Amino acid sequence: MAKAEVGWQKYLVEALEGLDSGGLLLSSLDDGGRANAMTIGWASFGVMWGRPTAVVLVRPSRYTFGCIEATGDFAVSVPYPEMADAVKFCGTKSGRNVDKFAECGFTALNVDGVRSPGIAECGLVFFCRVLHRNDVLPPELDRDVQTTCYPSGDYHRFYHGEISVVLADQDFVSRRLQADRQADRRA
Amino acid sequence: MAKAEVGWQKYLVEALEGLDSGGLLLSSLDDGGRANAMTIGWASFGVMWGRPTAVVLVRPSRYTFGCIEATGDFAVSVPYPEMADAVKFCGTKSGRNVDKFAECGFTALNVDGVRSPGIAECGLVFFCRVLHRNDVLPPELDRDVQTTCYPSGDYHRFYHGEISVVLADQDFVSRRLQADRQADRRA
Repeated sequence: MAKAEVGWQKYLVEALEGLDSGGLLLSSLDDGGRANAMTIGWASFGVMWGRPTAVVLVRPSRYTFGCIEATGDFAVSVPYPEMADAVKFCGTKSGRNVDKFAECGFTALNVDGVRSPGIAECGLVFFCRVLHRNDVLPPELDRDVQTTCYPSGDYHRFYHGEISVVLADQDFVSRRLQADRQADRRA
Repeated sequence: MAKAEVGWQKYLVEALEGLDSGGLLLSSLDDGGRANAMTIGWASFGVMWGRPTAVVLVRPSRYTFGCIEATGDFAVSVPYPEMADAVKFCGTKSGRNVDKFAECGFTALNVDGVRSPGIAECGLVFFCRVLHRNDVLPPELDRDVQTTCYPSGDYHRFYHGEISVVLADQDFVSRRLQADRQADRRA
């Protein structure tokens, strides 16, 4: 199914639901020109500096970190429920050792102006250009969050990306509903 | 109309539309226990550290800045279209000189665990507790954003707030639609 450009707000609720149910795929390009994807459960969407923005958090230890630092852009793809195995794979393997696009059978989806490819098999892709970055500051962090999320440091960097383009499958919503129904039948 | 608690994602699209069309109202409590509100056009909603979050940006020069620094919480209220004059007022006056709640006829709306009051006249209110704060870093900022948004410095602080409670009017959506239709007729 072909993808079409949509407004950045159109499927925001679906994107946030994806965060809650398994995660989204954050993709980037390494310095060898190879695409990589990591699973993320945290992100934020809104308006900053008068522009639509997606905020993602990446730990310095992640392979993705160096990729975004180098290209200054990223893509966030919202997977279909039936891609759960691939999402799990991308959340447990490192792009340092594995070609995740190849292993998962992902097809790179590209747009002008953003070097990071999205994932064509996902229903919805946000292509983003980094406008600003800053870091989690341990002294300014809630104590419970500190204990739960950073037992060994490795504090996230925030990337504030301008959402340049959003592409969605033309049957995005109906495919998601269909997949949910199939999962219900299996359960 | 009485307000009821709703899920944080339920009216997110309406909240983001509010950002685009005039702005939202960020309210806080000063050290004299007086409520204050400022109009914001920038904010972000999502999940960080496994919690629903609202991110707001406040310049150090703003009266609101000291309030949030002191209480560690804030509320974000989504006004109805007919509140446009109050929204404009709260975006052009400072709480240092004016009691904006009194001038605008706002009623403080309170919940347990967050000292900052929301605005009862708004249809939807997010009550948030600050989990983390950091700043816009000029060297890490896009050049165009720098020129457009910070000609004289005064760089924003980001407040990452956990959304503790969301209250909405039970007729929130129908009232918004009605107001939009009335505005169309006037236009």
